[in-house]
Amino acid sequence: VNEFDLIRTYFAAQSLARPDVQIGIGDDAAIVRPPPGTETVITTDVLVEGVHFFPDVDPAALGHKSLAVNLSDLAAMGAAPAWFLLNLTLPEPKASWLQALAKGMFALACEHQMQLIGGDTSRGPLAIGITAIGLVPDGTRLLRSGARPGDAICVTGALGDAALALAARRGKLSLRAEEIAAANERLDRPVPRVRAGMQLRDLASSAIDVSDGLLADLGHVLEASAVGARLTLQTIPLSSVYRAHLATIGWGYALAGGDDYELCVTIPRDNLERAKRSTEQNNLSLHVIGEIVPGHGIEIFDGAGQRYQPAGKGYNHFAAG
Amino acid sequence: VNEFDLIRTYFAAQSLARPDVQIGIGDDAAIVRPPPGTETVITTDVLVEGVHFFPDVDPAALGHKSLAVNLSDLAAMGAAPAWFLLNLTLPEPKASWLQALAKGMFALACEHQMQLIGGDTSRGPLAIGITAIGLVPDGTRLLRSGARPGDAICVTGALGDAALALAARRGKLSLRAEEIAAANERLDRPVPRVRAGMQLRDLASSAIDVSDGLLADLGHVLEASAVGARLTLQTIPLSSVYRAHLATIGWGYALAGGDDYELCVTIPRDNLERAKRSTEQNNLSLHVIGEIVPGHGIEIFDGAGQRYQPAGKGYNHFAAG
Repeated sequence: VNEFDLIRTYFAAQSLARPDVQIGIGDDAAIVRPPPGTETVITTDVLVEGVHFFPDVDPAALGHKSLAVNLSDLAAMGAAPAWFLLNLTLPEPKASWLQALAKGMFALACEHQMQLIGGDTSRGPLAIGITAIGLVPDGTRLLRSGARPGDAICVTGALGDAALALAARRGKLSLRAEEIAAANERLDRPVPRVRAGMQLRDLASSAIDVSDGLLADLGHVLEASAVGARLTLQTIPLSSVYRAHLATIGWGYALAGGDDYELCVTIPRDNLERAKRSTEQNNLSLHVIGEIVPGHGIEIFDGAGQRYQPAGKGYNHFAAG
Repeated sequence: VNEFDLIRTYFAAQSLARPDVQIGIGDDAAIVRPPPGTETVITTDVLVEGVHFFPDVDPAALGHKSLAVNLSDLAAMGAAPAWFLLNLTLPEPKASWLQALAKGMFALACEHQMQLIGGDTSRGPLAIGITAIGLVPDGTRLLRSGARPGDAICVTGALGDAALALAARRGKLSLRAEEIAAANERLDRPVPRVRAGMQLRDLASSAIDVSDGLLADLGHVLEASAVGARLTLQTIPLSSVYRAHLATIGWGYALAGGDDYELCVTIPRDNLERAKRSTEQNNLSLHVIGEIVPGHGIEIFDGAGQRYQPAGKGYNHFAAG
């Protein structure tokens, strides 16, 4: 099997053919034509074996997740997904493994009408790089820099389950089999909040996706917007699994665990009810967890009005330990 | 040093700011606005340590080459470079190494008015993935599929030097110090034929860049165009270093060595003189090496009119041996 056959066999088999793709896989480069009146939104992320996933990862889940983390970035800009490119580096090609990877990836791609338009395959340590491209109507994109004092801070779903699954896998806490299954689903198959991002485009003042942990990612919004935040600990949404163990594990995984891929958005008070209704139409709840305030940094208060001091601030690939 | 600081320090320092970039590095994704009347051309390639470069590679050369191989793909479409994204996976960040990498990359980027708009940094085995995006006026892009019988087959410069450098490095042949330096320059710092690609946009019937070896890449053009080719061995351009060793090394490196990053274009006879003049304005010679013929496959004839049978057909990452 040579690398061209590889790409053709497993990744050129996608049935979707968007009318805005002039040239897809098979030439020196792809050619697309973004529709008039749109801005083009581009993001790229790599998942590396041993860093972002375990060597025994389910290839279908890996295919899903490697695209999902990029879709999550498009969602945070309010963009509609359009095209993607895949860079696959692997020690040796195995048909069944590649088939499963492609299946997991294309299931998510097709759900979002996203066409694979190019890529590269190489021998090397296992890593999957994806470049995802989306579209927003001119001037409607969500940025990190729009948060203003008084805006509600909201998240689109429960936080901390992915970190919980990872901790259980590493033997740091003990969960029942069905709890592990539920938490693993959040770790392995995150659901990018693409529709919510598009729905909130005209209602939110800023957005980011929670990939490095709530405090770290909200911190980026605060920095870009030159504002501060006040959070109420008990309003941070938790899954039933997380809540069942809250007394022993504390809030750390929810605040700083990362890999959640929920959106964290700020919403002017006047838009809040409309924003809640529009995400609910999409079976997603918008949870208000705090408020933007003048100043800088994040203050967290517990139910009794006491300051809560978190231990960590987010996941960092190069941090010691 | 954390990964965000890393990216900011060494890669957000590019001074270029294109007016068509709405949001560059620093949000969840970049936002660009391709000008009206253009098509958007997108390519991506990864260079992996131990596969595409040696562990002791000069980081400035690596920075240059990782962008150059992508620019070469844009050149083969006739596209003007515009933006790029960088995925850097590395075992640990070292300031001096990253500085040199960024310097080599940005020197080439600035030469082509190309702005870095995003990327990702991760711990892992050393690999550099780049997604490069260019623009062509509507309907003017060069494809692999346009070659027609009678068209001249041309290349933009000498072939085989990169493979020669690699062979010398592996001890397969012995070169003098200044010969090694000249050949290494072609291997380490390939010059993507961007301007030639743009100049040939209205004159060539097809184009591809020679990355896997002339025979393999011309083969892709023939397949896409459903035609054959007849080459004259002695017309294939060689460097003076290559020519000095031709008697002992033969034509293999030039025909199938790869890593050349010259363009291989087919040009209708009526356009040939104009094509030669326009590339010469750019200090680049267009060498006619053969002709497109009906049928399929490649026939090579030597100066005496005898059929020449090449040994290999191009570089393949997954081929045995």
